[in-house]
Amino acid sequence: MTQRIGLYPGTFDPVTLGHMDIIRRGAKLVDRLVIGVTTNPSKSPMFTLDERLAMVRRECADITDTEIEVRAFDSLLIEYAHSVGASIILRGLRDGADFGYEYQMAGMNQYLDPRVETVFLMAHVSLQVIASRLVKEIAYLGGDISNFVSPTVREDMLARIGPKGL
Amino acid sequence: MTQRIGLYPGTFDPVTLGHMDIIRRGAKLVDRLVIGVTTNPSKSPMFTLDERLAMVRRECADITDTEIEVRAFDSLLIEYAHSVGASIILRGLRDGADFGYEYQMAGMNQYLDPRVETVFLMAHVSLQVIASRLVKEIAYLGGDISNFVSPTVREDMLARIGPKGL
Amino acid sequence: MTQRIGLYPGTFDPVTLGHMDIIRRGAKLVDRLVIGVTTNPSKSPMFTLDERLAMVRRECADITDTEIEVRAFDSLLIEYAHSVGASIILRGLRDGADFGYEYQMAGMNQYLDPRVETVFLMAHVSLQVIASRLVKEIAYLGGDISNFVSPTVREDMLARIGPKGL
Amino acid sequence: MTQRIGLYPGTFDPVTLGHMDIIRRGAKLVDRLVIGVTTNPSKSPMFTLDERLAMVRRECADITDTEIEVRAFDSLLIEYAHSVGASIILRGLRDGADFGYEYQMAGMNQYLDPRVETVFLMAHVSLQVIASRLVKEIAYLGGDISNFVSPTVREDMLARIGPKGL
Amino acid sequence: MTQRIGLYPGTFDPVTLGHMDIIRRGAKLVDRLVIGVTTNPSKSPMFTLDERLAMVRRECADITDTEIEVRAFDSLLIEYAHSVGASIILRGLRDGADFGYEYQMAGMNQYLDPRVETVFLMAHVSLQVIASRLVKEIAYLGGDISNFVSPTVREDMLARIGPKGL
Amino acid sequence: MTQRIGLYPGTFDPVTLGHMDIIRRGAKLVDRLVIGVTTNPSKSPMFTLDERLAMVRRECADITDTEIEVRAFDSLLIEYAHSVGASIILRGLRDGADFGYEYQMAGMNQYLDPRVETVFLMAHVSLQVIASRLVKEIAYLGGDISNFVSPTVREDMLARIGPKGL
Repeated sequence: MTQRIGLYPGTFDPVTLGHMDIIRRGAKLVDRLVIGVTTNPSKSPMFTLDERLAMVRRECADITDTEIEVRAFDSLLIEYAHSVGASIILRGLRDGADFGYEYQMAGMNQYLDPRVETVFLMAHVSLQVIASRLVKEIAYLGGDISNFVSPTVREDMLARIGPKGL
Repeated sequence: MTQRIGLYPGTFDPVTLGHMDIIRRGAKLVDRLVIGVTTNPSKSPMFTLDERLAMVRRECADITDTEIEVRAFDSLLIEYAHSVGASIILRGLRDGADFGYEYQMAGMNQYLDPRVETVFLMAHVSLQVIASRLVKEIAYLGGDISNFVSPTVREDMLARIGPKGL
Repeated sequence: MTQRIGLYPGTFDPVTLGHMDIIRRGAKLVDRLVIGVTTNPSKSPMFTLDERLAMVRRECADITDTEIEVRAFDSLLIEYAHSVGASIILRGLRDGADFGYEYQMAGMNQYLDPRVETVFLMAHVSLQVIASRLVKEIAYLGGDISNFVSPTVREDMLARIGPKGL
Repeated sequence: MTQRIGLYPGTFDPVTLGHMDIIRRGAKLVDRLVIGVTTNPSKSPMFTLDERLAMVRRECADITDTEIEVRAFDSLLIEYAHSVGASIILRGLRDGADFGYEYQMAGMNQYLDPRVETVFLMAHVSLQVIASRLVKEIAYLGGDISNFVSPTVREDMLARIGPKGL
Repeated sequence: MTQRIGLYPGTFDPVTLGHMDIIRRGAKLVDRLVIGVTTNPSKSPMFTLDERLAMVRRECADITDTEIEVRAFDSLLIEYAHSVGASIILRGLRDGADFGYEYQMAGMNQYLDPRVETVFLMAHVSLQVIASRLVKEIAYLGGDISNFVSPTVREDMLARIGPKGL
Repeated sequence: MTQRIGLYPGTFDPVTLGHMDIIRRGAKLVDRLVIGVTTNPSKSPMFTLDERLAMVRRECADITDTEIEVRAFDSLLIEYAHSVGASIILRGLRDGADFGYEYQMAGMNQYLDPRVETVFLMAHVSLQVIASRLVKEIAYLGGDISNFVSPTVREDMLARIGPKGL
């Protein structure tokens, strides 16, 4: 049997229950899963790269049946996949929202390296509406984010934002 | 019978004929309609919050069968709905464009407060293509916006832009 | 305050948990809700019209804060709305699947009678994937439908299909 | 390492270059791939079940790095996956067309058996427009189908249709 | 200058104001427009092929600046385009509804004959919701179709259906 | 016969193989094609307006059967169409991604000047995933862009970016 390595890229600012669902689903498809946290210099993230790396590592600590590695990356996705030996790129599939972008990126990656396969997984239907950007908006305005992130991520967010939102 | 209060949130920079169509349709669904004008600090609007409040109030002056209240808000939508007693959030439904975002927001609001219902209305088919952002672009470039906004809003926009566009 | 009457049309063959979610949400928007069960002669339904009427009535029995009326209809939707005094037609909004058809129907109904408003509600995200047609397919093949219909509807379906599917 | 078994279900009437592309991509994701050919009694296929089984087997003959098994099935997809030990259901992802149906089916299958994961792959962009139904229409009308199916499938279709289409 | 011939294919059962809008827009793009009326044996049309040919010819009678020819066809679209010298196939573009099918057909036609270009036009926004199938349903149920078809087509439909719908 | 002039507007930063495919297809529809390069002050382009003009002119040099003119423009699209005598605006149609925006713009342009027709063409299916923005991202990160732009555009990009990406 071939050893299969998957790469799940993202900003994870913060990691949501939707991301975690994709990670758990993806972990069953591969023998080793690299979670690539983008340094993402173009946006001003809520959490630094180091904080996001630590956060994702902590949330994945209970996944024991697949080897999980959380790493930063700032190179071309398809080349990063190559450098970590990944033949599979995992993406969460959400109906609507941002599929056009996903579609173009996956299509261009087919040209860049046909040996790396983009695989779309569907988060549980109850989690598909969760978007990091909206979770942050809700948190900044003092809303309850406990259905969207884990208790510890929620604490991290509240610690960052302060006692009563902005 | 229950008194039903609706909330129609938006930036209204400026209020278009599409918005007005949704407002008139929504006004028939509720006993009182709060139009929530977002302070929206992240974009540089054409009109100030006070100007937008005055503009929406003026455009709604002839709606007399439903009580209309135009108010500024900068809090979490679902909490603002709560604070004004609204059990209904009104949204205009456009095929394509931005439905993915609407869908995520409505889905996350279901979790935040299941007592507040997001209701999607369809503007008249002839008005659905109108988008505030494009109306402004057209006005800045000197185009004719009389099919997209009321005569008075058009005058406001021309006064703001100056005699021959930018 | 105006008395508001809503019409929720459908085949309900069978009524699913998705339908029931829309009915409960819609019931809060109106003072009286007419559920219109189409006679639907063009398909061969699993349940007769009388069975579907009885089924929907039974499932709605616990909705007591809004008057619910379950009726058969075979006329033009917009005229039927008129004949029962409904100013609101309720439709469930699902991302993807069949929205194009909904959109055309609502748009044509705007022309047929501008006084009747089509209102789209979003079933809970966890229920949006439920489709009557697929529920029937699953039941015929002996699959577990208990997440998609109520226990009593499930019993009705199993009684109709027989002990081990087809 | 876990042995991973995938199931790629379809009617394959006929098997197209689009299907074959998904099969080749999917074969790299699993250690054993079961191609499930539906008996599909509700449509009148161009090829009998036995012909379709033989056709798919022949087209897959050169895939040697993964064990491929082509089998008929007429049971519930998710139970069939279970019976062959598959933890992965493969589906081709096409932008537009029929994604709503795919989405509902995958979502309902999440409820039916959370241990079986639906995985969406994207055929090469140049092959995504190929649809069996249209290939048949083109062939019946005497059009050139050599860009859509393999030479041998093309011969099978022409033999079935006769010298000059219908 | 090249003489450009366009082909607008359809069933036209009946021809709607949406079709006529596309025809008028398309007539400005070409020097000669062939309207291809499909014999369409798979559905049971409201009007016979001869009736549909006569109906489309009558509706187009006032288009005088472009040569219009209305013809029946039952061959492969792309070959029929070729046989009438058309280098352009016209299609109406509707957001949502049936674009997936259009997209696949246009994509496959790119392979069948790259010299024939599929051109998508957008009917006026106020006419895009009109669908022949729904117009017939409305007419059969006695609804007012005067916003969807011309007065003469409406008369034809009422004559076919009888005094009070079905 | 009427002389037909088309306008294909864009930023072309850089011009991709997808753009060139639309230009070649569009050139067959009109007697003269104006390619309008937007000055586009709101983004920081990779290439200056003059560089983009020269680049598009160079890439179009081998199109000889239709007169091509490459011009800068910063006015309202529909008025610019008018000023160059164009009755046709060409747009590339991509499934998914950005159609909502295209749809709104075309719909609003119908109001602004009904004499100018927006015509959507479909790039070859193998080129539809190409997006200028992603091509630039890939180039900045040192990826191979030779499937997305011509050899000379690729050289221009590499010269701009420097020897090994950023």
